[in-house]
Amino acid sequence: MSNVFPDNSVGLITPRIAEFDEPLPLRSGRVLEQYSLVYETYGTLNENKDNAVLICHALSGNHHAAGYHSDTDAKPGWWDEAIGPGKPIDTNQFFVISLNNLGGCDGSTGPRSINPETHEIYGPDFPVFAVRDWVKSQARLADRLGIDKFAAVVGGSLGGMQAIRWSIDYPDRLDQCVVIAAAPKLSAQNIAFNEVARQSIMKDHEFHDGHYMKFDTYPSTGLALARMLGHITYLSDDSMREKFGRVHKTGVLNFNYDVDFEVESYLRYQGENFSERFDANTYMLMTKALDYFDPAGDHDNDLVACLSQATCEFLLVSFSTDWRFPPKRSEEIVNALIKAKKNVSYIEIDAPQGHDAFLFPIPDYFNALSAFLNRGAEQRRQISGQTETREAVS
Amino acid sequence: MSNVFPDNSVGLITPRIAEFDEPLPLRSGRVLEQYSLVYETYGTLNENKDNAVLICHALSGNHHAAGYHSDTDAKPGWWDEAIGPGKPIDTNQFFVISLNNLGGCDGSTGPRSINPETHEIYGPDFPVFAVRDWVKSQARLADRLGIDKFAAVVGGSLGGMQAIRWSIDYPDRLDQCVVIAAAPKLSAQNIAFNEVARQSIMKDHEFHDGHYMKFDTYPSTGLALARMLGHITYLSDDSMREKFGRVHKTGVLNFNYDVDFEVESYLRYQGENFSERFDANTYMLMTKALDYFDPAGDHDNDLVACLSQATCEFLLVSFSTDWRFPPKRSEEIVNALIKAKKNVSYIEIDAPQGHDAFLFPIPDYFNALSAFLNRGAEQRRQISGQTETREAVS
Repeated sequence: MSNVFPDNSVGLITPRIAEFDEPLPLRSGRVLEQYSLVYETYGTLNENKDNAVLICHALSGNHHAAGYHSDTDAKPGWWDEAIGPGKPIDTNQFFVISLNNLGGCDGSTGPRSINPETHEIYGPDFPVFAVRDWVKSQARLADRLGIDKFAAVVGGSLGGMQAIRWSIDYPDRLDQCVVIAAAPKLSAQNIAFNEVARQSIMKDHEFHDGHYMKFDTYPSTGLALARMLGHITYLSDDSMREKFGRVHKTGVLNFNYDVDFEVESYLRYQGENFSERFDANTYMLMTKALDYFDPAGDHDNDLVACLSQATCEFLLVSFSTDWRFPPKRSEEIVNALIKAKKNVSYIEIDAPQGHDAFLFPIPDYFNALSAFLNRGAEQRRQISGQTETREAVS
Repeated sequence: MSNVFPDNSVGLITPRIAEFDEPLPLRSGRVLEQYSLVYETYGTLNENKDNAVLICHALSGNHHAAGYHSDTDAKPGWWDEAIGPGKPIDTNQFFVISLNNLGGCDGSTGPRSINPETHEIYGPDFPVFAVRDWVKSQARLADRLGIDKFAAVVGGSLGGMQAIRWSIDYPDRLDQCVVIAAAPKLSAQNIAFNEVARQSIMKDHEFHDGHYMKFDTYPSTGLALARMLGHITYLSDDSMREKFGRVHKTGVLNFNYDVDFEVESYLRYQGENFSERFDANTYMLMTKALDYFDPAGDHDNDLVACLSQATCEFLLVSFSTDWRFPPKRSEEIVNALIKAKKNVSYIEIDAPQGHDAFLFPIPDYFNALSAFLNRGAEQRRQISGQTETREAVS
């Protein structure tokens, strides 16, 4: 490891690409004929190939979860505080895989890719994905890497929904499932926020029904608005108060529509910054995947019946001030798992950061994550030890 | 009363206009040289002129609070359920005045009016108002109508903020102050929502820095987005669930960006409907008045010191599921009033409708309003009776 990086960093990381030619049939009825997944790995796959952990990303996330892409990177991956040697997802123990989901805009096949059928950019013609479609593509990546069964599948927010889907669709392919700050399905209010975000993008003059790349333009205004709105829902009222209070930017009221309060300039910055790095069509389809997620829907809305298929252990984590997916939404999952007689641990973390808390290194949260994953590893060692003993005896 | 209207309606109402030539100095330092206020009255002013009740409207409200403008009106005024013979604000007892605030778009001088200095439409040059400016203009309307002292000043949301301002700036001019679903100042989250709404309007291609009327166009898209967003904050998560659940519009997922869920079409309709009837510059300045409201700001942020100036009785009402101005925000005012040794009644109403609840005829809420106003009327009758007795004796 380069000594420019902290000791507990996974260090310099080079993303890899996996190409797939086998068609991927989607929930929508459409088929993705061929596709690529960009991914990173941290740590080493052991001989038993039973120490792999899959990280599923949220709405605006990507494959770069930990480490650095160059010596000059100002910031490490988005979940660097959780992944690394000695960290909760300990790369001394686990082989961690993090990918950019299909439909993304950071290297995996998505709206900015060329449609092999038309030889043109997909743009808005890229299929709308369901969470199960992502999980299916992730399972194929696991096949490619020789991983039959994950030690754990881990995700926060939309990533947590992917983890839930893993436990239902591939019950034999994971030992543990970690679902952080998620919900069994979106509320009408959640959908409403997503709809206003989509309308902001769709009504931008530069959107051109999603064909903005053909017009060599970009709906940055609409995407910035969507992100500003998203940001309000990621932060708690408390954390906004702590962060900004009602502090005036200049100390004087302007009596015009310039920035009066700190929170206004923060939101404008967040919106503009995001709109420069993210793809609007990706944002659209990510929000639709959120809206559509409803695994109990296939089981007459019976979440217990739905989760009965799972065989893994579960850890659910929620955060006290998260009003996007509040603790009661996690508890719906926990209660259904208990009724389905599954092995489930649950912790509500007292944290001021709102939904965003899942990205913060909060001690109780990281300790729970670490203890849960270690317990799984310990169980595997015991089973493996028993097997070895038995082999030695026989 | 025409028999086409319900018996407990104030019936057919004709708005009136009051013209003012005396310049109105504003908090911003600007001066409105002349202006008109459109208003309605319901009931009869008594001989003592002590039975007048002022209604202050919220962000998108206007002077038409009760009754009908024609025999063919589909709907009565916005607070018709509260105002009328035998209703909580009983027009058999009270003389009710309801006006359109300055800067509005329903008849009072505002951004759509002609600036007498330039002979052009004000548009974005109409001054940004503070709540205290509205209250000052309302006091002048009271002068014009010969009302020295209101029996009560009543308002919900932004209207409640005007009622608070009345109690501070004109302590001798009201007996009772009714503050419904309000807050002593906006939170950073409240300001953030307003900022996203303003950005939606300002970034609309048809906004032209507010000069859209000059260009014979209208930022309807931006205003619709602002209203959609507003609507989410007016409804509770619970009420959205009750109203829409996750009901699909068609029963089938579209896998495109058409309407999938009922809540989406509701929001689109609300947004479009509003953008046809409301002025974008008015929306902008109403949100700024909300952001700027902070009466304690003039008293080193000491709300107790600020409210110490008041002499009237207070009724505060909050609603359990209101997350825009939750009960704890009303309680901040209540607690400050108690510390300032004021006469204050407070009720938190258990209601599922969120912030919008203040517009609903919820029995406990309407009973509290009615009882409070009747107590004030009874006190005035007793004092007046004592005065008469004393006069008869002397």
